[in-house]
Amino acid sequence: MPVAFAAQEHATIAQTSAHNALFVKVSEALGLEFVGNAAFDEFYEMQVQERHGTRRKKTAGQTLLKERLLREATVLDADILKVSSFVNHMVDVEMMEACGEELAERLEKQQPTKVLTVEATGLLPAMFVAKALSLPCVFARKQRQISISDSYQTSYKSTVASTPQDLYVSTEYLNPSDRVLIIDDFLAGGRTADALVRLCKMANANVVGGGFLIEKAADAGRAFLSGYQIPLESIALVEVKDGTIHVIEQDSREAPAQLQSEVAAVARNFDDSPPDDDDDGLVRLSV
Amino acid sequence: MPVAFAAQEHATIAQTSAHNALFVKVSEALGLEFVGNAAFDEFYEMQVQERHGTRRKKTAGQTLLKERLLREATVLDADILKVSSFVNHMVDVEMMEACGEELAERLEKQQPTKVLTVEATGLLPAMFVAKALSLPCVFARKQRQISISDSYQTSYKSTVASTPQDLYVSTEYLNPSDRVLIIDDFLAGGRTADALVRLCKMANANVVGGGFLIEKAADAGRAFLSGYQIPLESIALVEVKDGTIHVIEQDSREAPAQLQSEVAAVARNFDDSPPDDDDDGLVRLSV
Repeated sequence: MPVAFAAQEHATIAQTSAHNALFVKVSEALGLEFVGNAAFDEFYEMQVQERHGTRRKKTAGQTLLKERLLREATVLDADILKVSSFVNHMVDVEMMEACGEELAERLEKQQPTKVLTVEATGLLPAMFVAKALSLPCVFARKQRQISISDSYQTSYKSTVASTPQDLYVSTEYLNPSDRVLIIDDFLAGGRTADALVRLCKMANANVVGGGFLIEKAADAGRAFLSGYQIPLESIALVEVKDGTIHVIEQDSREAPAQLQSEVAAVARNFDDSPPDDDDDGLVRLSV
Repeated sequence: MPVAFAAQEHATIAQTSAHNALFVKVSEALGLEFVGNAAFDEFYEMQVQERHGTRRKKTAGQTLLKERLLREATVLDADILKVSSFVNHMVDVEMMEACGEELAERLEKQQPTKVLTVEATGLLPAMFVAKALSLPCVFARKQRQISISDSYQTSYKSTVASTPQDLYVSTEYLNPSDRVLIIDDFLAGGRTADALVRLCKMANANVVGGGFLIEKAADAGRAFLSGYQIPLESIALVEVKDGTIHVIEQDSREAPAQLQSEVAAVARNFDDSPPDDDDDGLVRLSV
């Protein structure tokens, strides 16, 4: 038996969030469904999502980043994206903060205790993720620092660089009790994130998630990192077709799993051995 | 004739900022002075400062930074400060934001249009200064970027490094109409800030101020930069005596001028020629 809370010719005004919750509870407790106009159904759907913790509240970062990607980014040789006018040379700080807040919201449930990134451009989103979650932000250095005596060290070869890159994190700043979020500006081949995970493993710290501004679908970084079984979030999933940039729509709730299988389909074989699944000291989390 | 707004045995409660302003205006218009207890005088002083735009509202950054400097920073060889646990390896993001807001407040009157810093650690305060003032944040790169074709390039030799460091800024992101704030984590010898000013000069952009987290008094960077005649602000002025760190109290309003003469007194001769004063395209501002 459908119960109409308001006839179609009446406007429904949600007065407070307590009222909203009450409406939803009553209808669910009595096994009744809302009927009404489209706006009313949307409101009900939103309330249900909120109760189940699946509602994405923040979308400003996504909107701003997508707009700038489509308007200003250009494609260079080897499908390298030029995003220097808003990410990696001149920073749109408002956009960056909105993206950081959005990543923070998506990854907060992993209960992280620390944000880990790599200098320099990784700091841009990482600082705002750390700020939103009130966490310290550790950044791996690319050169040994004079002030650091004992470090975890690793090296990796990114898809765009010709020589391997060293990374160092002081043994002081990664601990076995840490639940680490790995944040970076780009997820392309996944080599940088993989190196950061390895640094955490040396410290027996748990990696509980990864967050990125821009994910390049064709580079299959998500597939490369899939062995770690941690949730990976990106604000914009980008594809380059015939020299043009496309931002792929990500469904707000089922994105990670769906994307993972999609991207896995285009994964190519890697020279490096894939990350091993055993004895890595990581908490297993379903994606 | 002194007029008492409240007898000493009554508490004075400032109800709104409009009331506060009214009290001050009345007393000043009639040429009367406030009399009362210490708290009342302090309140009056605060209102006068606010009217004259000389009141420092934000001091949280200063407090937090000083606390961590005294508690955690250590002194390495050649009086290098180790601040890796809260600035340049693991970042105390809350402290960093408070410092950025404080620098922004002090330098806002220069009406900047852009923040310029250098990767990587300069980004930490610069991002929060830019955020507080709603400005874009440009950061000089230490290596030529594949995505940048035309750059302003300079090089400098910092007091702690053994080899010269190149800096690049794309010609796209510095323009003659820009009023630039130079922000960095440290002001020591002043060579980095000087290089950033030179990059701005190449672009005919105006440098209108400089802001730093930590200023090392003994390295005389303030004296080295004095030829540019721009206001320089630092959150913590630090001195190392016998291997111990001292944070020198800066008077909240007259700090820059006072410090400049103090620091100039300990300035040593430099190998490089001092910055020239003529034809540098800078707006002259008294410090």
